[in-house]
Amino acid sequence: MDVEIMTIGDELLYGQVVDTNSAFMGQQLGRLGLRVRQITSVSDRADEIVAALDQARQRAKVILTTGGLGPTKDDLTKHVLARYFGRELVLHEPTLRHVEDIFKRFNRPMLDVNRQQAMVPEGTEVLHNAVGTAPGMWIEDQGTVFISMPGVPFEMKRLMTDEVLPKLQKKFDLAPIEHIVVMTAGLGESFLAEKIKDWEAALPSNIKLAYLPSLGSVRLRLTGTSDGQPDLRSRMLALLPALRERIGSYIFAEEDSPLEVVVGQILKTKNWQLGTAESCTGGAVAARITSVPGSSAYFRGSVVAYDNDIKEALLGVNAETLAQHGAVSEATVREMAEGARARLGCDVALATSGIAGPGGGTALKPVGTICIACATPSGTVSRQINIDRGRQTNIEYTAQAVLILLWQQLAGHKEAALLKV
Amino acid sequence: MDVEIMTIGDELLYGQVVDTNSAFMGQQLGRLGLRVRQITSVSDRADEIVAALDQARQRAKVILTTGGLGPTKDDLTKHVLARYFGRELVLHEPTLRHVEDIFKRFNRPMLDVNRQQAMVPEGTEVLHNAVGTAPGMWIEDQGTVFISMPGVPFEMKRLMTDEVLPKLQKKFDLAPIEHIVVMTAGLGESFLAEKIKDWEAALPSNIKLAYLPSLGSVRLRLTGTSDGQPDLRSRMLALLPALRERIGSYIFAEEDSPLEVVVGQILKTKNWQLGTAESCTGGAVAARITSVPGSSAYFRGSVVAYDNDIKEALLGVNAETLAQHGAVSEATVREMAEGARARLGCDVALATSGIAGPGGGTALKPVGTICIACATPSGTVSRQINIDRGRQTNIEYTAQAVLILLWQQLAGHKEAALLKV
Repeated sequence: MDVEIMTIGDELLYGQVVDTNSAFMGQQLGRLGLRVRQITSVSDRADEIVAALDQARQRAKVILTTGGLGPTKDDLTKHVLARYFGRELVLHEPTLRHVEDIFKRFNRPMLDVNRQQAMVPEGTEVLHNAVGTAPGMWIEDQGTVFISMPGVPFEMKRLMTDEVLPKLQKKFDLAPIEHIVVMTAGLGESFLAEKIKDWEAALPSNIKLAYLPSLGSVRLRLTGTSDGQPDLRSRMLALLPALRERIGSYIFAEEDSPLEVVVGQILKTKNWQLGTAESCTGGAVAARITSVPGSSAYFRGSVVAYDNDIKEALLGVNAETLAQHGAVSEATVREMAEGARARLGCDVALATSGIAGPGGGTALKPVGTICIACATPSGTVSRQINIDRGRQTNIEYTAQAVLILLWQQLAGHKEAALLKV
Repeated sequence: MDVEIMTIGDELLYGQVVDTNSAFMGQQLGRLGLRVRQITSVSDRADEIVAALDQARQRAKVILTTGGLGPTKDDLTKHVLARYFGRELVLHEPTLRHVEDIFKRFNRPMLDVNRQQAMVPEGTEVLHNAVGTAPGMWIEDQGTVFISMPGVPFEMKRLMTDEVLPKLQKKFDLAPIEHIVVMTAGLGESFLAEKIKDWEAALPSNIKLAYLPSLGSVRLRLTGTSDGQPDLRSRMLALLPALRERIGSYIFAEEDSPLEVVVGQILKTKNWQLGTAESCTGGAVAARITSVPGSSAYFRGSVVAYDNDIKEALLGVNAETLAQHGAVSEATVREMAEGARARLGCDVALATSGIAGPGGGTALKPVGTICIACATPSGTVSRQINIDRGRQTNIEYTAQAVLILLWQQLAGHKEAALLKV
C-alpha cells in the first residue's frame, strides 16, 4: 500500500533546514511494509498546502505531514486542515491539561498561544505528544487518513513510534517488503557492479538491487517484494553466500551498520581498547566512535592535537620528525598513533593529519593531502590519501578512511586498498 | 519566479539517505531571487518520475532534478528524460573524453557502463561535471527548463555553482528576495515571540518573520519580497535596532552563522586560544570548532577523556574529586576545564561530562544529567543541565550548550540562563 509524506515549512524550501524527518518516517514506514510513493515539501502558504494535499490523496491512502504546528503566527497547518475538511477547531481538554503540566513542570508562565495548541479540528483523533505541546492529529476523510505531527524531529519520532506506527499497523495489514543491506568499503560502485554482474543478472524478478554510494563506502540494498511464496527473507538471505564469494573482502557488515559500530563489536570481542590522535579531523573520529552507545567499554579517549606543540607535549611526537617531514606526513601520523597508544594506554590507536583546506596548502602538499595511521600490537600501518572536495567533506572522508583502515587491520584484510575517491 | 526541485531515488523514499541536496539547492536558488515552490522526492520508477515531472511543469518554469545518473542498472533518469521529451540518446564527445581522462588519471580500467555516461538526449545542453563522470543536462521543452544533475552531493554542488546558477542568472532577471537571519540562544520560541510581538505586528506586509527553532537556539528569519520601492535590504536592516532593544542579550549573530563561527571571531579579536576537555561529547565540541576554516588560528586542541584514568593523567583532575563527586559533577568539569586550560596552554577551555545514555544512569544521576564548564582568565563557570532525548541529541545539545556558555562569557552576558529544553 502506498503512503505519502508531506513536510511543511518555508524553511525547507529556502534550504535553511535539512529535512531529516522524511528519512526517519520512510525507514519506519518501510518496516511496516508500507511504500512511500512520494515525499513533498511545501511552503507555509495555505493554498499551496491544500494543492499538495489534493494531489497526494490521488496517489495514496495515508498522508503523513510534519510541521506548521508551533505556537507562532507562521504555523498554519492546523487551521489549513480544519478549513480543508470543513471542520471547526475545538478544545481538546486532555491536551490542554498536558500543556499546562509541561509549563508547570518547567515553572514557566503559560501564554495564550500555548493554550491554543490544545485546539484541534472537530473529529480529530488526538495523538498524544508526550514530549511537546503540539498534539499529533489523525483525521480520516473520505477513505484517506491524514496524520499531522510537529516538525521538531524528536517530537515527531516519539509520535511515530508510540502512536502513529501502532495505529497504522492495526488499521492496515499487508505483506511486508524485506530489505537486506550489505555494507562495503574499498571498491567503487562500478567495480562492485562489474564483479557481481552475473549474480545481479540472476536475481529473481521480485528482488531488486540498488547501489547506494557514500563517501568511502557503497551500500548494497536488496529489496524483496512478496511473490506470494513464503519465507521471502530466508530466500533473500540464501543469495548472500554467492555475493560473499565475489566481494567478501570488501564487506564489513551484512546489515545497515556504520563502520564505527562494526569496529566497536570487533574491539569488544578482542577485548581491546581504542584511542585516537587527531589533527585535521579535529575530534570527528572520536565523535563518531563515541556516538555508539556503550562505546565507553572499548574507547579510552583522544588527543586532538591541532597545534604542533600539543603533538609533541601530549603525544610525544619527535620535534625532529615534525621539522624533517612536516605535520602532514606518514612519519608524523605513525608517531602520533604510537604516542596515543602509549599515552592513552590502549591496544589500538588511530591518527590523522592533513590539510583540510581551504587554506594551508603548498605546492608539495596541496589542500587535501591527508595522512592516516593505525597502530596495533602487531605494528603500525599508514597511508597517504588525497581528496579535495571542500573542508567538510575532506574531514568526513578522512574519518571514514581511518575507520576503514582500522577495520581492515581488525578483520585481517591488511593488504586491502582504500577506496579511491 | 517559481522553480521546483525534484530528487530521484528509492533510497530517499526508504529513508536510507537524507536528502541534503534540496536544502543546498534551495539556499542557492533563493539567493538568485528564485522561489522554490515545492520539493518532490520520487522513486526510480519511470512512470512515477514522469507523473511528477508533469505536475511540476504545471507549477514552475524551471525544474531541477538530482539523482538517477549513476552507471548502474537502477539509474534511470536519463532514459526517462529522453523518452519523456521524445528524443534519442546521442554521444556527447567532450564528455566521453572527460570520462576517459578521469579513468586514465586514476589508472583504472574503463567499463562500458562508464562509456555510456557520455550519452545524452538529443538537443541537451551539457553542463560540464568537472568532478565526476555523469554530465549535468539542461533541456528546454515548451518553455520549461529541465535541469538534471547527479545525486552525489559534491558533484551537484560543483555543477550548481559553476554551471546552473550562472545560466539561470543569465536567462532570467528578477527582483531578489531578501533574507535577514538573526541567531538567538537562551530563550525559547514562544518567549521570544512574546517579547517581540509588538515589533512583529508592526512589520510591513512585504516582510515576513519566521521562527526556526533548533536544539538550544532559535533562528529568526525576516523575508522581504519586493514592493516596487528601492532599498528593500536597507529598510529591512533598519528594523533591527528595535529588535535588539527587545532581545539584544540573546542575539549572537545578525547573519546565518553558527555559534562555532561566532565564538571563533571573538576569540580571534581577543587573540585568545581555545581548548576543550570532553567526556560525554567525545570530541563533538572540538569537531564543531575545527569545522570552521582557519580555526587553527585560535584552537589548540582537545583531550577527549572518556575514561576516568585519562581525566586524571592528561587533565590533572583530582582522584579525590572524582571519588567524592563523580565524573559527572560540576566539581569535575571545573577541574577538567582548568586542567585543559593549563595542559593545552590556552586562554579559555571548555569541559563536558554527562550521561549521554541509553545506559549508565542512576537514581541520583539519571541519563541526561550533563555538567559543563568554561574556564577563562577571569575564572571558571559551570552549569548542570538535564536533557533526555536520546544519546545523539543529548550529545549535540551538550555541545551546543557549552558553546552558548562560552559565547555568554566572551560576549559579557555572564549571568544569562541557558535555554531550557
